[in-house]
Amino acid sequence: MRGNPRKAKDSGGPPGAGKERVRILSAEPLNAETPLEALAEDLTPESSFFVRSHFRRPDVPRKQVLEVVGAVQQALRLDIADLQAMGTRTLTATLECAGNGRTGLQPLPAGERWGLGAVGTARWTGVPLRAVLESARLRPHVVEILAIGADRGRPPDVADEIPFARSLPLAKARDPDTLLAVQMNGRPIPPEHGAPIRLIVPGWYGMASVKWLERIEARAEPFRGYYQLDRYVYDHADGNSPTPVRTIRVRSVIVFPRDGDAVRQGQLIVTGKAWSGEGVVVRVQIGVDGAEPPRDATLLPPISPHAWRAWEFAWDATNLGRHILRSYATDAKGNRQPEVGRWNRYGYGNNAAQAVAVTVQ
Amino acid sequence: MRGNPRKAKDSGGPPGAGKERVRILSAEPLNAETPLEALAEDLTPESSFFVRSHFRRPDVPRKQVLEVVGAVQQALRLDIADLQAMGTRTLTATLECAGNGRTGLQPLPAGERWGLGAVGTARWTGVPLRAVLESARLRPHVVEILAIGADRGRPPDVADEIPFARSLPLAKARDPDTLLAVQMNGRPIPPEHGAPIRLIVPGWYGMASVKWLERIEARAEPFRGYYQLDRYVYDHADGNSPTPVRTIRVRSVIVFPRDGDAVRQGQLIVTGKAWSGEGVVVRVQIGVDGAEPPRDATLLPPISPHAWRAWEFAWDATNLGRHILRSYATDAKGNRQPEVGRWNRYGYGNNAAQAVAVTVQ
Repeated sequence: MRGNPRKAKDSGGPPGAGKERVRILSAEPLNAETPLEALAEDLTPESSFFVRSHFRRPDVPRKQVLEVVGAVQQALRLDIADLQAMGTRTLTATLECAGNGRTGLQPLPAGERWGLGAVGTARWTGVPLRAVLESARLRPHVVEILAIGADRGRPPDVADEIPFARSLPLAKARDPDTLLAVQMNGRPIPPEHGAPIRLIVPGWYGMASVKWLERIEARAEPFRGYYQLDRYVYDHADGNSPTPVRTIRVRSVIVFPRDGDAVRQGQLIVTGKAWSGEGVVVRVQIGVDGAEPPRDATLLPPISPHAWRAWEFAWDATNLGRHILRSYATDAKGNRQPEVGRWNRYGYGNNAAQAVAVTVQ
Repeated sequence: MRGNPRKAKDSGGPPGAGKERVRILSAEPLNAETPLEALAEDLTPESSFFVRSHFRRPDVPRKQVLEVVGAVQQALRLDIADLQAMGTRTLTATLECAGNGRTGLQPLPAGERWGLGAVGTARWTGVPLRAVLESARLRPHVVEILAIGADRGRPPDVADEIPFARSLPLAKARDPDTLLAVQMNGRPIPPEHGAPIRLIVPGWYGMASVKWLERIEARAEPFRGYYQLDRYVYDHADGNSPTPVRTIRVRSVIVFPRDGDAVRQGQLIVTGKAWSGEGVVVRVQIGVDGAEPPRDATLLPPISPHAWRAWEFAWDATNLGRHILRSYATDAKGNRQPEVGRWNRYGYGNNAAQAVAVTVQ
């Protein structure tokens, strides 16, 4: 027996840092999530930003050429300098893995064991994909734009090696906020986050934001690849066809206090973040001990239409003992976080309200 | 703002003890649960044993007389010495609160916010209730035996002050293992656990084991009190009548490692407890990361027919990263813990498998 347990919360991270930056879920391929306390900031530092990889990280040279091919009148080969010469824009966007919160579903679906830290917000600088598509001049019958990464491998149930590849409907590809990003928080994108070029699709779960982008393909037919039809679909195992995972569902997290914390009796400022791919978050409500109705938190000003919104709630923690806090976000389209996530075979889109147990003493 | 949070795990308990004994859920009435690490022992020390109170703790003198009344041919008044003179027996029984694990249900039902620590095992010494009923000579039409505690108060939705009172069907009252206990782990019962006399009903959820027992009433009609018909019932809010909460549902807990622990790569002995009111636990299976089928743990020898059973599982923790462990107990009647607890209005009997996240590093 080799026990010697240590609390994950107090360990890990770069040697000497004294504080955990990410929590490793799997080492190869690297999957790691953000400790909830690192979600307190508006922007998530790259060193704390969650990492989602499907295969071993490819070693893509910074001078790598991005190919634009398929149903175009002008195929293109662009390096990072060519891209930047087309004019960049910067936007702040929250990325969330489709599997974030998967471990809250029962029975536990297959897939990476994400807690609630597969989410982060960064400033992304890049060229709108739309500009590149205009340069390449799409043929009229194009229906989808396929993004192909340099990362390749063989998923357990697939015969051949495949790249990670995902398509976007033409309208989403042409959205001016869909970027070929070359910077994250003002610096070149770090290797594990998709250097040198990463597609950023604000409002969609992270699988759409293809890392290590190598090729863009204009398609006259819908793409039917593994990560398009076999994974990143909601499969409710009810006989109905699986449906694609796309827009981020409305969600909130409680950042402070943390689950298991003990706090002193008195007023306490509960803080957190809330976001939705469907539209701005317009309300966050806090439920204490299941009492109805939950009460409104104060929303802080939005930092970007595509980013999470901070909120605060002044809780009068007068009764001693254990209390359960839950937060419920509502977006501009009227979507509200459910109490219970809808189970699906691969465990995507679980936006159920989180429960945080706090002992007042 | 008065933050200054401390981890509950590292605080509390008697001054100077350096280790938490119970975790307070509410101070008045006192409700407190056992930290999971204290479940490692076969017997739970009184100082760590969970406390469930409905009202302020009554101050019952040790010489208090127990009345035996109702449909009997011989009413009795017995003090603790009279009881002990009738001959005692000692048995080891696991008590579990019907609301244990309530906070795992969504939406959160009303009631005390129990985690998984509202369970404990002790040696109870007392006189079989059966012997007292024989002395009192029950009339032939008796159908139930009502146990009435000295604790009284007004539940929020009740007009009058009532005592805590629960009835048993005649057969269960006559079970030789249903005790009028006067000792817990070889010493007088501590005040918060029901001194001087507590009814102990092995195999049933804790609400049946009435504390501070003051009166026993033989009844010709079923008892219709608040804690019999309005609470401690499974109310599934589906239009069907609520059904009584009685037998403890099969359940297991993982005691080591704890949720959130980080452990070194290599073989690790996972340990825990399993119990059921329906019969002995015959199997515990451990699922890692949702892989099917889960694998058998080793059951340790039973310490008593009414007590939990320890189990161990050698886990080859070879893959780095986060893993989710779940344990599933099965009892002799074939009952197995479900993945998801069945929601009910007051949150009783949630025996869903617990998920423990462990990071191998």
